[in-house]
Amino acid sequence: MQRHVLKITTDDQQGLIYKICEIIFKNNLNIEQNSEFVESDTNKFFFRAEISGDFDDSKLIRLLNEALPPNSKIECQKKQSKDIIILATKESHCIGDLLIKFDSGELNANIKSVIANHSDLQNLVERFGVPFHFIDSENITRKEHELKVLECMQNYKFDYAVLAKYMRILSPDFVSRYPHKIINIHHSFLPAFIGANPYKQAYQRGVKIIGATSHFVTNDLDEGPIITQDVVRVDHQMSWQDMRKAGKYCEKTVLSKALDLVFDDRVFISGNKVIIL
Amino acid sequence: MQRHVLKITTDDQQGLIYKICEIIFKNNLNIEQNSEFVESDTNKFFFRAEISGDFDDSKLIRLLNEALPPNSKIECQKKQSKDIIILATKESHCIGDLLIKFDSGELNANIKSVIANHSDLQNLVERFGVPFHFIDSENITRKEHELKVLECMQNYKFDYAVLAKYMRILSPDFVSRYPHKIINIHHSFLPAFIGANPYKQAYQRGVKIIGATSHFVTNDLDEGPIITQDVVRVDHQMSWQDMRKAGKYCEKTVLSKALDLVFDDRVFISGNKVIIL
Amino acid sequence: MQRHVLKITTDDQQGLIYKICEIIFKNNLNIEQNSEFVESDTNKFFFRAEISGDFDDSKLIRLLNEALPPNSKIECQKKQSKDIIILATKESHCIGDLLIKFDSGELNANIKSVIANHSDLQNLVERFGVPFHFIDSENITRKEHELKVLECMQNYKFDYAVLAKYMRILSPDFVSRYPHKIINIHHSFLPAFIGANPYKQAYQRGVKIIGATSHFVTNDLDEGPIITQDVVRVDHQMSWQDMRKAGKYCEKTVLSKALDLVFDDRVFISGNKVIIL
Amino acid sequence: MQRHVLKITTDDQQGLIYKICEIIFKNNLNIEQNSEFVESDTNKFFFRAEISGDFDDSKLIRLLNEALPPNSKIECQKKQSKDIIILATKESHCIGDLLIKFDSGELNANIKSVIANHSDLQNLVERFGVPFHFIDSENITRKEHELKVLECMQNYKFDYAVLAKYMRILSPDFVSRYPHKIINIHHSFLPAFIGANPYKQAYQRGVKIIGATSHFVTNDLDEGPIITQDVVRVDHQMSWQDMRKAGKYCEKTVLSKALDLVFDDRVFISGNKVIIL
Repeated sequence: MQRHVLKITTDDQQGLIYKICEIIFKNNLNIEQNSEFVESDTNKFFFRAEISGDFDDSKLIRLLNEALPPNSKIECQKKQSKDIIILATKESHCIGDLLIKFDSGELNANIKSVIANHSDLQNLVERFGVPFHFIDSENITRKEHELKVLECMQNYKFDYAVLAKYMRILSPDFVSRYPHKIINIHHSFLPAFIGANPYKQAYQRGVKIIGATSHFVTNDLDEGPIITQDVVRVDHQMSWQDMRKAGKYCEKTVLSKALDLVFDDRVFISGNKVIIL
Repeated sequence: MQRHVLKITTDDQQGLIYKICEIIFKNNLNIEQNSEFVESDTNKFFFRAEISGDFDDSKLIRLLNEALPPNSKIECQKKQSKDIIILATKESHCIGDLLIKFDSGELNANIKSVIANHSDLQNLVERFGVPFHFIDSENITRKEHELKVLECMQNYKFDYAVLAKYMRILSPDFVSRYPHKIINIHHSFLPAFIGANPYKQAYQRGVKIIGATSHFVTNDLDEGPIITQDVVRVDHQMSWQDMRKAGKYCEKTVLSKALDLVFDDRVFISGNKVIIL
Repeated sequence: MQRHVLKITTDDQQGLIYKICEIIFKNNLNIEQNSEFVESDTNKFFFRAEISGDFDDSKLIRLLNEALPPNSKIECQKKQSKDIIILATKESHCIGDLLIKFDSGELNANIKSVIANHSDLQNLVERFGVPFHFIDSENITRKEHELKVLECMQNYKFDYAVLAKYMRILSPDFVSRYPHKIINIHHSFLPAFIGANPYKQAYQRGVKIIGATSHFVTNDLDEGPIITQDVVRVDHQMSWQDMRKAGKYCEKTVLSKALDLVFDDRVFISGNKVIIL
Repeated sequence: MQRHVLKITTDDQQGLIYKICEIIFKNNLNIEQNSEFVESDTNKFFFRAEISGDFDDSKLIRLLNEALPPNSKIECQKKQSKDIIILATKESHCIGDLLIKFDSGELNANIKSVIANHSDLQNLVERFGVPFHFIDSENITRKEHELKVLECMQNYKFDYAVLAKYMRILSPDFVSRYPHKIINIHHSFLPAFIGANPYKQAYQRGVKIIGATSHFVTNDLDEGPIITQDVVRVDHQMSWQDMRKAGKYCEKTVLSKALDLVFDDRVFISGNKVIIL
């Protein structure tokens, strides 16, 4: 039977779980899995459940709205794969990983199209039957380029835009159109090595561990809410190019695991933090 | 205010969370933190909550027993530090780690005494004001030795017996007296390298990763429910003695983290598996 | 300038590095990088150097043979990418990872062809311009199938055969034709969970860590020399299918890293162990 | 037989290993273990060997000085345990770990004394027979306090000063007296979260991984050459106090492993980087 995912964010108060579960139980729905979290700093309550049964979304949401504090955020939708657009530049390791998973049905998302500011990946992407749009950034302003990208994106209905090593900084205007809908992979364990060429920065600092971070994009460069991170050990024998090579394994794995969580509706955002239920 | 920990294990059925939370809510108690898990293989439901409020244990347990399926296991006790006995042999890294944590109040347990089959650790243990019992295993049978150890243990009231590198195999009779109360640290990532000298076994097999495992002791050697594990990378340059040295960091950390979980009442046992809530 | 890789395995004795470096130096060659290791168990000396300069392979090998103990194994070859054949079954994560790296020139090897006992991967493989041979194993004996596979392999010149989740056990006869030339990825941290469905075994044992192992194939199932391993944490919430999904990241990364080492001529085999210089 | 450790840092040129090994070989000494590294950025050559045989240090150093480029740095000394002083504040996890290792003979160093700006650790330290000096920092200037600490330190002969969670910033004047002799443990994966309360910083940033870094102390706060680092996963459920608790395992392990490398004479410093041979 089709499962639904119910996500609730509200102000914490006594008895919330009781009230939510009462409504679900008395509507003859079954909780297959649930988890909840109270963030003590903000006094916010987060709840996620996978529910099965004979389903009337709007009734459930109405009942919950009546029972829960005002301004509660309640989402209930079928558990299903997401639609995504990928933005990329030249490197194939992250996008290749996503294409392979997509092709074998393991991505939990449909790649609607790829937009890139270089043409290098065209051949690879099209082999997988995915539309590829090369939007050259040479000889035009950043703003002009972004407008073209936006225009292209607007031809597609998508849930998330994934920056799979898209090596351009997005303007505040661009980001503000897709709040919490743009997911990036940054090639360092943030907040270390924000900005350009983090492997070179890591090499110069002489660190013994490098990493990668997948995060939602906000207007502050590399400062958005972190979804997941991982690291890899390095040593003095490695040049920054060696570190970049070693880091690629980390980058593609971190991005892919972050997307698994997002596409599975497990991710809540609270301020600048990610809560995973 | 003093918190209580409520742990429930029961057969899964629709509405369990609702029923449990209703009782808690209607008794004016507050759930500070809760988590639950349904094991699909066994159809068992596991629930843990930290509860605050004006408390009547016996009433709460009675109400829960009335509402939940028969044969439910319901425990409710004050959140407080545990009493433990440590069994050891010669090595100091695990017991030393526990003594340091105990001494600074970070262990969440009171070390009532240490029993060892060698006297090497006496000086160290007594420095921390902990009674040390040397029960020599030389020139007596295994059974005679165990009887002496049991006799000594019976002088203490304790919640758990911790084998902090106790290098003797316990008999089924011994183990059966303390079901799920004896916690061991084994110096391999089980189920690899069961039995004697796992570092030598690991060296001979040429593995690139070694590890340590903390588990409850059952009658099957090194086969009890696993609480936690960790690993450490090794390479061809390391002798088995080097591996043993590297492994010590792993052993003491794994044991200490497992005990944190157990002493915090987060551990449920289901068959041969550990569920951590 | 083209670099050469010099690999020496010999009985250890005093002054070996001196003798080797003297020959290299007096022939006006330059050591760009070198490392060496003495295995104390076997008293074997292993040496690897990357050498640049005006090169006469046969003269260098002759001089080294004169200077080193009898029965020394001396190899000197241009540093260049390897030729490989891949054997696979149905899963695409490992082979997909290799194809993406191959396509972008990051594999350090040429994939000459893929042989599979199912046709599922044909479409994917051929998209990358790589010949795909489907050799059905249904309705024929293991021996008949292997003969067909061998016949197919013999049409190609290759340095290594890579089992990228080839879910069939190779016969001793097959293995003996390619000693130390067949590389496998096994989906457990060996020696734990040898044989079929290690994720199910891991789930049933209740381990808190799973892993993957890349090793050379010998006649003892999953017992060949280990090149590299990695692990991933799991918990009680994961079914064995969840573990398999999590393990895929580990499998493809471990295989890929092992191949990096092998294709870079960094791997020596001593008995059942791998030495990486 | 007593081993010696030979450490050489010099400008790279062709034939260095040949020249060094020739001198060792022709003096009837035996290289038990050696490794070398050329840092391409600086064109520096680093060499470390453990040597056995009938030994004349001064002759060996003279011969090497004659053969190697001018301004070579050549050190040759008996392989033996180091003398250290520990500076600490209140926390016992790092210093406790070192005391336990010291007590069992596993530290490879003699703890000559502990100096602390609080008296909390006195009892613990003195139990291990180690002199403890409480130098209160209250009601005196930073400079006055440092002078008292220096005065105390000057009563001891030591190879290294270890800051085992010494929660005070050392002045440039203090640091300059002990170049590359002061080793710190910082409770973050540097360069992330420099300065005060890195766990709080990590919590506020919402990272999914925290860590610890052991480094040599220089005048730039938390910017000295990094010896080793490690990390630990965290999640949204953890308060910054939980992170601090989890981080303690990491801190003590990282400091202890860094000291193993330093006390074993495996560490070379090149600019702001650490090379480990």
